[in-house]
Amino acid sequence: MKEIINCAAYQNGHRTADVELNKVHTVLEDVDQFVWIGLHEPSEQMLQRVQEEFNLHDLAIEDAHRAHQRPKIELYGDTVFMVLRTAHMNQQKHIEFGETHFFIGKNFIVIIRHGSTVAYTEVRARCESMPELLKNGQSFVLYAVMDFIVDRYFPVVDDLENELEAIEDKIFKEKPRRETTEQIYQLKRDLLEIKRAVSPLVDISNRLVRMDIKNISSEAQPYFRDIYDHVVRINEMVDNTRELLNTALEANFSLISISQNDTSKKFAGWAAIIAVPTMVAGFWGMNFRVMPEAESEYGFYSIIVLTIVACVVLYFLFRRSGWL
Amino acid sequence: MKEIINCAAYQNGHRTADVELNKVHTVLEDVDQFVWIGLHEPSEQMLQRVQEEFNLHDLAIEDAHRAHQRPKIELYGDTVFMVLRTAHMNQQKHIEFGETHFFIGKNFIVIIRHGSTVAYTEVRARCESMPELLKNGQSFVLYAVMDFIVDRYFPVVDDLENELEAIEDKIFKEKPRRETTEQIYQLKRDLLEIKRAVSPLVDISNRLVRMDIKNISSEAQPYFRDIYDHVVRINEMVDNTRELLNTALEANFSLISISQNDTSKKFAGWAAIIAVPTMVAGFWGMNFRVMPEAESEYGFYSIIVLTIVACVVLYFLFRRSGWL
Amino acid sequence: MKEIINCAAYQNGHRTADVELNKVHTVLEDVDQFVWIGLHEPSEQMLQRVQEEFNLHDLAIEDAHRAHQRPKIELYGDTVFMVLRTAHMNQQKHIEFGETHFFIGKNFIVIIRHGSTVAYTEVRARCESMPELLKNGQSFVLYAVMDFIVDRYFPVVDDLENELEAIEDKIFKEKPRRETTEQIYQLKRDLLEIKRAVSPLVDISNRLVRMDIKNISSEAQPYFRDIYDHVVRINEMVDNTRELLNTALEANFSLISISQNDTSKKFAGWAAIIAVPTMVAGFWGMNFRVMPEAESEYGFYSIIVLTIVACVVLYFLFRRSGWL
Amino acid sequence: MKEIINCAAYQNGHRTADVELNKVHTVLEDVDQFVWIGLHEPSEQMLQRVQEEFNLHDLAIEDAHRAHQRPKIELYGDTVFMVLRTAHMNQQKHIEFGETHFFIGKNFIVIIRHGSTVAYTEVRARCESMPELLKNGQSFVLYAVMDFIVDRYFPVVDDLENELEAIEDKIFKEKPRRETTEQIYQLKRDLLEIKRAVSPLVDISNRLVRMDIKNISSEAQPYFRDIYDHVVRINEMVDNTRELLNTALEANFSLISISQNDTSKKFAGWAAIIAVPTMVAGFWGMNFRVMPEAESEYGFYSIIVLTIVACVVLYFLFRRSGWL
Amino acid sequence: MKEIINCAAYQNGHRTADVELNKVHTVLEDVDQFVWIGLHEPSEQMLQRVQEEFNLHDLAIEDAHRAHQRPKIELYGDTVFMVLRTAHMNQQKHIEFGETHFFIGKNFIVIIRHGSTVAYTEVRARCESMPELLKNGQSFVLYAVMDFIVDRYFPVVDDLENELEAIEDKIFKEKPRRETTEQIYQLKRDLLEIKRAVSPLVDISNRLVRMDIKNISSEAQPYFRDIYDHVVRINEMVDNTRELLNTALEANFSLISISQNDTSKKFAGWAAIIAVPTMVAGFWGMNFRVMPEAESEYGFYSIIVLTIVACVVLYFLFRRSGWL
Repeated sequence: MKEIINCAAYQNGHRTADVELNKVHTVLEDVDQFVWIGLHEPSEQMLQRVQEEFNLHDLAIEDAHRAHQRPKIELYGDTVFMVLRTAHMNQQKHIEFGETHFFIGKNFIVIIRHGSTVAYTEVRARCESMPELLKNGQSFVLYAVMDFIVDRYFPVVDDLENELEAIEDKIFKEKPRRETTEQIYQLKRDLLEIKRAVSPLVDISNRLVRMDIKNISSEAQPYFRDIYDHVVRINEMVDNTRELLNTALEANFSLISISQNDTSKKFAGWAAIIAVPTMVAGFWGMNFRVMPEAESEYGFYSIIVLTIVACVVLYFLFRRSGWL
Repeated sequence: MKEIINCAAYQNGHRTADVELNKVHTVLEDVDQFVWIGLHEPSEQMLQRVQEEFNLHDLAIEDAHRAHQRPKIELYGDTVFMVLRTAHMNQQKHIEFGETHFFIGKNFIVIIRHGSTVAYTEVRARCESMPELLKNGQSFVLYAVMDFIVDRYFPVVDDLENELEAIEDKIFKEKPRRETTEQIYQLKRDLLEIKRAVSPLVDISNRLVRMDIKNISSEAQPYFRDIYDHVVRINEMVDNTRELLNTALEANFSLISISQNDTSKKFAGWAAIIAVPTMVAGFWGMNFRVMPEAESEYGFYSIIVLTIVACVVLYFLFRRSGWL
Repeated sequence: MKEIINCAAYQNGHRTADVELNKVHTVLEDVDQFVWIGLHEPSEQMLQRVQEEFNLHDLAIEDAHRAHQRPKIELYGDTVFMVLRTAHMNQQKHIEFGETHFFIGKNFIVIIRHGSTVAYTEVRARCESMPELLKNGQSFVLYAVMDFIVDRYFPVVDDLENELEAIEDKIFKEKPRRETTEQIYQLKRDLLEIKRAVSPLVDISNRLVRMDIKNISSEAQPYFRDIYDHVVRINEMVDNTRELLNTALEANFSLISISQNDTSKKFAGWAAIIAVPTMVAGFWGMNFRVMPEAESEYGFYSIIVLTIVACVVLYFLFRRSGWL
Repeated sequence: MKEIINCAAYQNGHRTADVELNKVHTVLEDVDQFVWIGLHEPSEQMLQRVQEEFNLHDLAIEDAHRAHQRPKIELYGDTVFMVLRTAHMNQQKHIEFGETHFFIGKNFIVIIRHGSTVAYTEVRARCESMPELLKNGQSFVLYAVMDFIVDRYFPVVDDLENELEAIEDKIFKEKPRRETTEQIYQLKRDLLEIKRAVSPLVDISNRLVRMDIKNISSEAQPYFRDIYDHVVRINEMVDNTRELLNTALEANFSLISISQNDTSKKFAGWAAIIAVPTMVAGFWGMNFRVMPEAESEYGFYSIIVLTIVACVVLYFLFRRSGWL
Repeated sequence: MKEIINCAAYQNGHRTADVELNKVHTVLEDVDQFVWIGLHEPSEQMLQRVQEEFNLHDLAIEDAHRAHQRPKIELYGDTVFMVLRTAHMNQQKHIEFGETHFFIGKNFIVIIRHGSTVAYTEVRARCESMPELLKNGQSFVLYAVMDFIVDRYFPVVDDLENELEAIEDKIFKEKPRRETTEQIYQLKRDLLEIKRAVSPLVDISNRLVRMDIKNISSEAQPYFRDIYDHVVRINEMVDNTRELLNTALEANFSLISISQNDTSKKFAGWAAIIAVPTMVAGFWGMNFRVMPEAESEYGFYSIIVLTIVACVVLYFLFRRSGWL
């Protein structure tokens, strides 16, 4: 896949031209235009060229290359550097994380994708179809891509909530199984990872709302507040699921104990029933000279019948008192 | 059900006229009047007409349409947009949530109901019967509807507290059952949902009390503080119930264990009692030539009587030491 | 019981006159005097008369009538409205809560008692015996009553601490019992209720210390700090007891498990001992033609003696290894 | 023991004279001197004399007499009143708490010891040997005594950490015992008490560092920061031990369960082994006319040998699969 | 090992000369130069000489000598004193902690290593190879060493995360064992120790970022922010591992219970199977004159075959219902 996905200049909300990376600095001189570049896992040389064109800070470029950052927003002079984590559920119901880095300057925005992320060509197309908003410049582009990234967390969290419901069904409707406990643990792990990716977003979007950052136009404020809202909701969903999961773990444990108790009771009940014929047989097995019915032809059969009757009676007694 | 429930102009605390939605902007020019519109699950077109009449922000209208928001208060220019969640217990003792959205401007208030909510005609009637308060304009209307919404949380939380008490009775007075654990879990779930609906209200009513919002008159401040108070109390009740529920879960667990121990002891006790006749029968079942009483006519019966006596003695011994 | 307990005017630290409620406004005109009224569960009419005399806010009067408030301090114009919860342990060792409401104005203080509270005549007597302090006016009266209310929490919390110690004794010195778990739960409930009554007091007394409230004289500041101190201590005691109680619940649970293990071991030990005679009897019960000692006269007895010896040896072996 | 331990005037870092308590006010007039008084559990009269000499506030004197305060620092006019709790481990490894109160004025410091505390004569001697520091006046005396008190917490906390290690050994290396659980509980209790004594010290020393208190010279600031550091460290040690203790409690519980499981398995294994001879004996105990080996001379012995062999084989099989 | 590892003067990013410790004050007079001294576990005399040369505070020198500090940053006049803890995993997979102390003044930096730390000669070499950055003076040296120390925490935390994964495998894939619980406890201990070393770093690096400290040049700000970022990430990793570990402990516990339940069921199943032959043998062991097949030649064998068939049928029935 090529490294430069797209590199275009925009004026007044419309794409004016595709630019070569090494021509970008000439476009930047025109303050009425802004440049939007999309990169995908760029090489070190590519990043160096980008750094030169836009005059970016060493440390930010280093971060943009390494790509194992936590979400953050930082100012290097006039340039904003932002890191977001992206997430989607793959076919095997496993969460895959990616990273997207942003450089936002006076009249440019550089977007760098890492790892398993969908391309933002869709977002670009949508932006270009709304020139009256794209007029706001790179702030609106930033909003559009952030919104796209944040909205893709909802299906992931929904999947985790469904997973919790599946676990609930297993806990309350099936017999206790080792797999259920392992699933609870895995869900906890996933929730913690999502939390780690999402919780710094609250601060980031809050800072964007508070508008204390240069190069972010104040018209975009309500839009970032919208993102803030979504982020808070995702956080709340994750926390909720986490707290319910903890309760589920404990409920699971209670039910394991109850089920253990049921096992003991069932065992005790059957043991008591089986004790009857053993006892009877023991008594008539004694070597006394005189024993009732011992000489009778139907003694054996009548004793067996009596024993069975006693067992059946016991069975229903235990049944009624809940031991069987 | 129709979308526009009511649309009227008020002056000096009295309803002056019912207005058509498309005539509203003419009324709004008169600063001495204010317009109060009540909508119920409006269509997109209806919302667009409302947006045009009152000049509302795109994002707020989008939110007002979608209706799966968390409670919040936001300023779009001079207009306040507010989202509240409503709750009531249905017949099946299941909490149903709805949403009510507010737009409050210089001299108008738009109230939009979504989902399972009671109509606010009752509130409107009460407001119109207090012209000296309704004189305060849309702030008082906002207070009246908020108060109505918040007060309807009390019976819901009371029901949850009663549910906890029912669970306590099951835990401490009945035998451990799987259903109790499931009920605890369901109650936890309900409490978390209520919490999610109520806890943002603390911030919202606090902001209304701090009076930093335009278009909310300062005369209404003590009223919003009253709502703040109620909200804090509901929150406290929910937190309390939640903490007690956690303890109940653990207490339940302890009692399951004790009951398990009782089962084991009972089983052990009966096993010991049954071991006596088995042992006796075993001994007289041995094939020795000389055995006591073996030749006696009443040997069999006397052994059986002795065995029963031994069992009864054992039974009372175990009883006394708490094993039976 | 009458509604108006007392209604007197004070000047320079001395009671100058008993006043009729409807004459109060004439006294209030004299800024050198202050009026102290004590009410007990007043009717709505009574409250209305008080409201008129002192010119109090509607919402505060409504609160003062309903009496199911959480502790709070609020300003309605120049008048401070305060709600405190009172507590005492009744004969059945059950905590009874009451409420006391205060209205403090420029030169008056109205104190309204609700529910199970002791009368404040004792406090009034003490105040009147200290004219040099009572000179400070209604602030000192407020302090005196608050101090009285807060100090009465100490014996209640002491009782709860003793209850915890009683529970500890049951856990560590007696056999696990269902009642202990229920007592732990009840204590937790009580602690939560006390916490709910006391924790808002920290903020209230802190606000009184910070002296940002009109009509509270700055001379009273060290006195309110003293109350603050007591309140913090009560809070700490409650939190401490709560944390210990949680540990007690878990310790209780551990001991139930150990005791269960002991039951299992004891059962296993006795089962093993009983297995010996059963096995021996089984072997000599076999129908072989030739068996050792079978023909001997003392065979039966010697086998029984041997079996008993084997059982005794086993008993001591198990004893030593801790299974019995 | 006498109430006044010491009462001396200091100038320029050197002790100039021992003063009589009732002469103190004459010394206080000389601003170049400061007076350092040490009291031990003074009577009410003694405190009244001190109050008169130094002109102290009623409430502070009341506190100083009662001695069941939580650590605090308070300003009464120009005089600082401070309460610290002291702790040491007695011979029976039980923590004994005491209290030390300080009054610090323009040129005096009064130190009052209560309960089980070591005398501060040692501290006084050390101070007098460092005249260049004692020149800083009462601030340095305060530092020296505080440092002494705080440093004596370290051996106490070390003892609690050792106690935790002893408990760990019992949990992981010995069989589960009731005593271990009780020790965990007692340690938790001790930790909570230490925490209660130490945690307010963070605020107190922090306030002394922030230097917003009159009569504390700014030269002493680094010294109080040193104390702050120690206090934070003690707090951290206590919190750490507490969290480890919670984990230990849970680990203990897990191990009790494993040990219970082991008991069950061992019991099941032996029961299975014992079932073999019982079954064999049962079969040859049947009254069939024709049974294998029944008539043989060595039938009995060969059956017994075969049974023993079967049991031994079973024993090793269970051994290998971990049931014995 | 010698105490002074290195002592050199730098100007304009280049090392200009190695200096003798007692000549340092002459170099310090030249404001264009700065001195960088590296010490290793210096003696008290050595520290005294350093103190004299750089004019350091008594308390800081005391701290630098003792070396059992918690990480902190402190200002003594113009000199910054900083304590960091270093960590590495030794061969036995045991964490070893060391300490590094810094004194940063107007134009000097003193770095003192204690305990098991790697020498910083590598860092010095790297610094000297970047003169354009070393030009920033002692701030950059501080950054370089801090960065080195912080980066060495990553492999330690990675090791702990791997340890957790190993424990997970043991919990979910193997039988419950005492060792697993002990490993969980040890990991918790390690995590708490790392936490204690790392968490104060957040504040320290944050203070360095906020630039409110003299002698730290503002050019270094982005670099310290980079360290802040790493520290926050390490903290997050530790917290994450800790929360997962808690869940692992509980999951482990659930699985122990399930496994206990399995033991009980298996035991009950086998007991039921063994009860069949015992019962059959008991019946035919009774001494009735007339019993079916008793006289038949193949009676014994046919009964045994029937019994075995019954047992096998039972075995498969239990198998299907999950008891075996």
